Amino acid sequence: MGGHQPAEAIEPLAMLLGTWRGRGSGRYPTIRPFEYREELRLWDSGKPVVASSLESWSMSGEPLHQEMGFWRPEPDGRLSVVLSHALGVVEVAKGAIDGGSISLASTSIVRAPGGSAVKSLERLYRLEGDTLSYELWMETDSTPLALHLTGRLRRR
Amino acid sequence: MGGHQPAEAIEPLAMLLGTWRGRGSGRYPTIRPFEYREELRLWDSGKPVVASSLESWSMSGEPLHQEMGFWRPEPDGRLSVVLSHALGVVEVAKGAIDGGSISLASTSIVRAPGGSAVKSLERLYRLEGDTLSYELWMETDSTPLALHLTGRLRRR
Repeated sequence: MGGHQPAEAIEPLAMLLGTWRGRGSGRYPTIRPFEYREELRLWDSGKPVVASSLESWSMSGEPLHQEMGFWRPEPDGRLSVVLSHALGVVEVAKGAIDGGSISLASTSIVRAPGGSAVKSLERLYRLEGDTLSYELWMETDSTPLALHLTGRLRRR
Repeated sequence: MGGHQPAEAIEPLAMLLGTWRGRGSGRYPTIRPFEYREELRLWDSGKPVVASSLESWSMSGEPLHQEMGFWRPEPDGRLSVVLSHALGVVEVAKGAIDGGSISLASTSIVRAPGGSAVKSLERLYRLEGDTLSYELWMETDSTPLALHLTGRLRRR
């Protein structure tokens, strides 16, 4: 449904609205490297936040990761994000929008029973034309912050 | 996308899969009573969790509330849920499935900067045929746990 909230509120993220598809590669000190496919959607929720949905699959089509949430831009370029992850954690992150670069760092991650051992996440997105590339760094209970994912998505 | 995960994992929530639409009414010690429309969707994510999306609108169509997340049933009838809310909070909840009754109580709520003052939430769902009714109780920084929302949704 369209919204009554001013579109100005989400204007700082307007360049990201849409559907992005592509591929990424993962690595981490504790696992074997892997490749994946991915779809990221960001849409105007009608509220002063951008809603997001992220899904990834193995190259053979098996569901890997899913997360959904809301991105709230501030007029000064700051950004706060709330996310829920299919692997049983919720995340609050803060960040900054600087032209085509967006950085995000988790400020709080809470696990449901049996949830993932992730402790913190950092993401860096870079938009160039219709290509959105990113890297994601992850810290877990047993591993310090390390590069985990890099991806390259194209606007659909 | 269909999943490779066993459907057995989400079987305890199978009766909720689908799209539910209806109306609800809200009240709280600090606000005037109000009515709203609502759509709840629960779907098989291909992972051992059920993905969910909830949206509500005022009777004139203005977006009110949105939340998205994942529900993980355990074989013994317990349930854990991770949710992100458009109003800037994330929530971890635990609950129980007992026939057509599902209870959920938040175990952790974390706010993004400027996020809602909600402190805890309790929900009770009751499924009878194709009607899903619920009540939601809310505690905030300034108000003890009080009935906030009651709704009645029909399967689409």
